[in-house]
Amino acid sequence: MADSNIKQPLLHLPPQTCQNVAPMRRRLRRFKSAPMAEFFPGEINDTKDNQSLPRSDSILDKLHPSFRKVMFYLVIYLAIGTMCFYFVQNQIEGKKVNGVLDSVYFCVVTMTTVGYGDLVPDSTTSKLLASVFVFSGMALVGLVLSEGADYLVEKQETLLIKAMHVRRKVSPSEILKEIETNKLRYKCLVTTVSLVVLMVVGTVFLAKVEKLSTIDAFYCVCSTITTLGYGDKSFSTRAGRIFAVFWILTSTICLAQFFLYVAEVNTEKRRKELVQLVLTRRMTNVDLEEADLDNDGLVGAAEFVVYKLKEMGKINQDDVSLLLDEFENLDVDQSGTLSTTDLTLAQSS
Amino acid sequence: MADSNIKQPLLHLPPQTCQNVAPMRRRLRRFKSAPMAEFFPGEINDTKDNQSLPRSDSILDKLHPSFRKVMFYLVIYLAIGTMCFYFVQNQIEGKKVNGVLDSVYFCVVTMTTVGYGDLVPDSTTSKLLASVFVFSGMALVGLVLSEGADYLVEKQETLLIKAMHVRRKVSPSEILKEIETNKLRYKCLVTTVSLVVLMVVGTVFLAKVEKLSTIDAFYCVCSTITTLGYGDKSFSTRAGRIFAVFWILTSTICLAQFFLYVAEVNTEKRRKELVQLVLTRRMTNVDLEEADLDNDGLVGAAEFVVYKLKEMGKINQDDVSLLLDEFENLDVDQSGTLSTTDLTLAQSS
Repeated sequence: MADSNIKQPLLHLPPQTCQNVAPMRRRLRRFKSAPMAEFFPGEINDTKDNQSLPRSDSILDKLHPSFRKVMFYLVIYLAIGTMCFYFVQNQIEGKKVNGVLDSVYFCVVTMTTVGYGDLVPDSTTSKLLASVFVFSGMALVGLVLSEGADYLVEKQETLLIKAMHVRRKVSPSEILKEIETNKLRYKCLVTTVSLVVLMVVGTVFLAKVEKLSTIDAFYCVCSTITTLGYGDKSFSTRAGRIFAVFWILTSTICLAQFFLYVAEVNTEKRRKELVQLVLTRRMTNVDLEEADLDNDGLVGAAEFVVYKLKEMGKINQDDVSLLLDEFENLDVDQSGTLSTTDLTLAQSS
Repeated sequence: MADSNIKQPLLHLPPQTCQNVAPMRRRLRRFKSAPMAEFFPGEINDTKDNQSLPRSDSILDKLHPSFRKVMFYLVIYLAIGTMCFYFVQNQIEGKKVNGVLDSVYFCVVTMTTVGYGDLVPDSTTSKLLASVFVFSGMALVGLVLSEGADYLVEKQETLLIKAMHVRRKVSPSEILKEIETNKLRYKCLVTTVSLVVLMVVGTVFLAKVEKLSTIDAFYCVCSTITTLGYGDKSFSTRAGRIFAVFWILTSTICLAQFFLYVAEVNTEKRRKELVQLVLTRRMTNVDLEEADLDNDGLVGAAEFVVYKLKEMGKINQDDVSLLLDEFENLDVDQSGTLSTTDLTLAQSS
């Protein structure tokens, strides 16, 4: 229903005007644009930063800001959690091995919603405390998944591709190109490999240190990484709980991230199908009419692009309307096209 | 880096040509487009369906296909799960009340990863079975969240807005408009209200039927909806387990959906900030140069829209390139604009 708006003339101007004025202005513009770029290098660099975030190998890039933020929150959460549960440790029931260690372990088991039940809160205070920490823990895990995990996986991609081409030398730019092309595929691969490694390490550890049978160890691994945590098998030794703190955090997040990528692959597949559908669908005269954004009776390349993007569901009429309003504001001389003069006039007023 | 491509001429044609031909063609097109629409109503309806899925109140809409699909999978999953666990019921240890009921209950507690541990698998077969069911259950819950839950929330939105305007009559079209404008806000509201209702119902039920203290009931509710499931408090009566089957499924999914909406609100906020940034940023001559998609020296409304959309990160150069290729294929006479003649020629060849 929103699409019917396109038919209305958005820019009220006699189309004749712009065609007469255009050729002259074009010659002027071609001339002026290059020197302008040299006059305001600062402003132009600003622009570049906004539109395409470039990959750089600086230290800043290695410490991605949102990843640092997430790690910071995680440390704060675990510190506060450990402290709280340490203070109420006599109100927590179950097999204990060491005050501080049990508190961290309980905190991790709670925040990841594994909840074995080998340690359970046993007073009103500790029960309410656990309730608060499980909700905030869930939110934090969500934050890790949306901001931090993807970044780590991207970092691992480079290592993976290097390892896959270990026999022949691959230049960093080739790796970057390879990653760009098969981004999602490599991300799935990285998480799958990580998941298998984590599961094997967990099973071996549980079998060796916690003395579980192989089946029980594997069952405990599955029960943990899915955050099921029946609790009939869990980490009960000192070494086991130290291992658990790190292993539970990484493996539960790794599995969740894996599911997220699978979902992304599905979305991507559907999107590609839709794009294919839109590209192969025959254009009709009605389409031409609707695609004619500025109502000048011509469908140019850009108008075609906007129309098809809308059809693909990538953008909607609101996005377009908002930008057309902005265009009209900038187009001071109402010629239907933007020129240096328009910009100067629009930005001085 | 992809943006530098724009500077190259994508459509090699003397711009003079198109400007001379244009006015004549426009008169022809305006004439032809309307009758065409009447000639092929079927094809045009097809088009409409693809570009903007219209809201209708038909029966088909009430039974949204993906929602039906998800419900179908859920029923199949629970049926197979119940059957499997029923056959190995003597290999499951813990407090039992009724064969079939315990199997469904165990199945739901496992698939939602609550995993109280009040019933635990006690043989190799049942342990492996539980491992398989928890992974597939996680995938299914993901499917419910991505396809089914959002649909239910949307349905509830209408009820909510009707309830909010109960004093004065609101027409269905007004409700639709209200929903469109504040879609995400209402979705958050609906899930929050549902969550509070589910938590209150759960607490009251656990207190009355399972005879828990209010604090314990609330603690068990928190432990369940977050899928923590320590298992020190759980559903142990016949009535409790019947209730649990439905309540656990809805409440865990409701909380997860709530977190998803919160994440969506954050994404939306960031996107709006970016849009604001892009809109308020001063256009420079370099921008004009780069926005000039067809390299005719003019930045029209549609070119401006495409350039700004790219800057907002809504689309990328790949999308644009793909569509420009398609445009060039369709533009048989290489005039830089599409006409009826182009379409006829392109689609007959």
